[in-house]
Amino acid sequence: MGRIRMIVEYDGSNYHGYQVQANARTIQAEIENSLLKLTGTRIPVLAASRTDTGVHAAGQVIAFDSCSTIPPEKWRFALNSFLPPDIRIIRSQVVRDDFHPRYDAASKGYSYLIYRQEAGQTFMRKYAWCNREKLNVAEMQKACQFIIGTQNFQSFCAAGSAVKTYERRVEKCILYHRGPFLNMEIAANGFLYNMVRIIMGTLVEVGRGNYPAGRVPEIIAARDRTLAGFTAPAAGLYLLKIEYDEK
Amino acid sequence: MGRIRMIVEYDGSNYHGYQVQANARTIQAEIENSLLKLTGTRIPVLAASRTDTGVHAAGQVIAFDSCSTIPPEKWRFALNSFLPPDIRIIRSQVVRDDFHPRYDAASKGYSYLIYRQEAGQTFMRKYAWCNREKLNVAEMQKACQFIIGTQNFQSFCAAGSAVKTYERRVEKCILYHRGPFLNMEIAANGFLYNMVRIIMGTLVEVGRGNYPAGRVPEIIAARDRTLAGFTAPAAGLYLLKIEYDEK
Repeated sequence: MGRIRMIVEYDGSNYHGYQVQANARTIQAEIENSLLKLTGTRIPVLAASRTDTGVHAAGQVIAFDSCSTIPPEKWRFALNSFLPPDIRIIRSQVVRDDFHPRYDAASKGYSYLIYRQEAGQTFMRKYAWCNREKLNVAEMQKACQFIIGTQNFQSFCAAGSAVKTYERRVEKCILYHRGPFLNMEIAANGFLYNMVRIIMGTLVEVGRGNYPAGRVPEIIAARDRTLAGFTAPAAGLYLLKIEYDEK
Repeated sequence: MGRIRMIVEYDGSNYHGYQVQANARTIQAEIENSLLKLTGTRIPVLAASRTDTGVHAAGQVIAFDSCSTIPPEKWRFALNSFLPPDIRIIRSQVVRDDFHPRYDAASKGYSYLIYRQEAGQTFMRKYAWCNREKLNVAEMQKACQFIIGTQNFQSFCAAGSAVKTYERRVEKCILYHRGPFLNMEIAANGFLYNMVRIIMGTLVEVGRGNYPAGRVPEIIAARDRTLAGFTAPAAGLYLLKIEYDEK
């Protein structure tokens, strides 16, 4: 049947992130175990993004090869019947044999949710960062403008991560109120480790008045992680959408 | 210090309901254990409503007596520091010594949420009834009108529950779209066992076209549980607000 591509939605709160690791429950392990139950063979699964512990996905993309006779559009329902309820396949299709969900990605989109109300925090604590402190949102929105562009984002990369280049092209970075939430949407051709959460932490430092939006270009230019803000909590982060040039 | 009244918000998904029972994790047990840790004494706690397994609360009301020297407005923070994160005290105050959260309640309000979208079900499965079937909402809204009033609701009471009277005064029963949700708000001077969930199940039968809204008065008049709809899932139900005549 060739290579199958799937879009996966998951609640990351009960998992130690996406990637398989010893002695920990991970999204990848659940998917590979479910595929084993379904097909009788152990099939390695590729993914667009290795989300961290507690991070959610509305549009993770995975791919794997199979010679099963299950029709591609039925894969979704078949696999869902083996997966736990906090991991759901929302689309499945056949793609070209050399499709790679990570290397072929043209753009990745994330969303970061801050919950601003006291009532309802009990229900939101795993699905948003519950934060009611006074924030200057207009100043944070100004800061978003400085994030956009092709830049070296080393200041927004968790220390110790080895990458070829710190340059990324951020196409979108907007912050807006939506009901009781403050939502940041960000899209780029790729992200460094913890980049979205460090950007959010930096925006919150701006919102608190600890430094003005105009400091952000200096922070970027310094290529120094210690100058950017803290790493915002995992619970607010959602992998939203991966885009590919070919359809 | 006398009697303390608290408003409690809780995520019911990890509990076997409100009321203490042997060998099961319950909201009441968590609250009483936290009070024991905080005060060093085992204090019985009264509540307005014994919510079922998986049912949530935005405004449960509890009360207990204490001779602790903690100032009443500080109770909230003190107790929250011992409670698990899925149970939160959102207000605390001193009330008259004979205040009873259940017997003194003038009105109780519940909300029932149906989630109508496919995307996001992974996150909503414990906080709403995920149901995408085609429903005639206008007909369901007509049916709501017949629920309002002082009536014998035996047809909407789980079989086998012993009560003095099946008569209840329903003051409000409305159904409306709110974003991806269909929300029912219902308020009454009291509810029978499973009454809100059976009303919702009956509304959904109407929405499916299994019978018209006009059948509802007949179902009520029959005083026969078998004529009403099924019991809708617990996950959609929220105890919203308890009202008292005195302030």
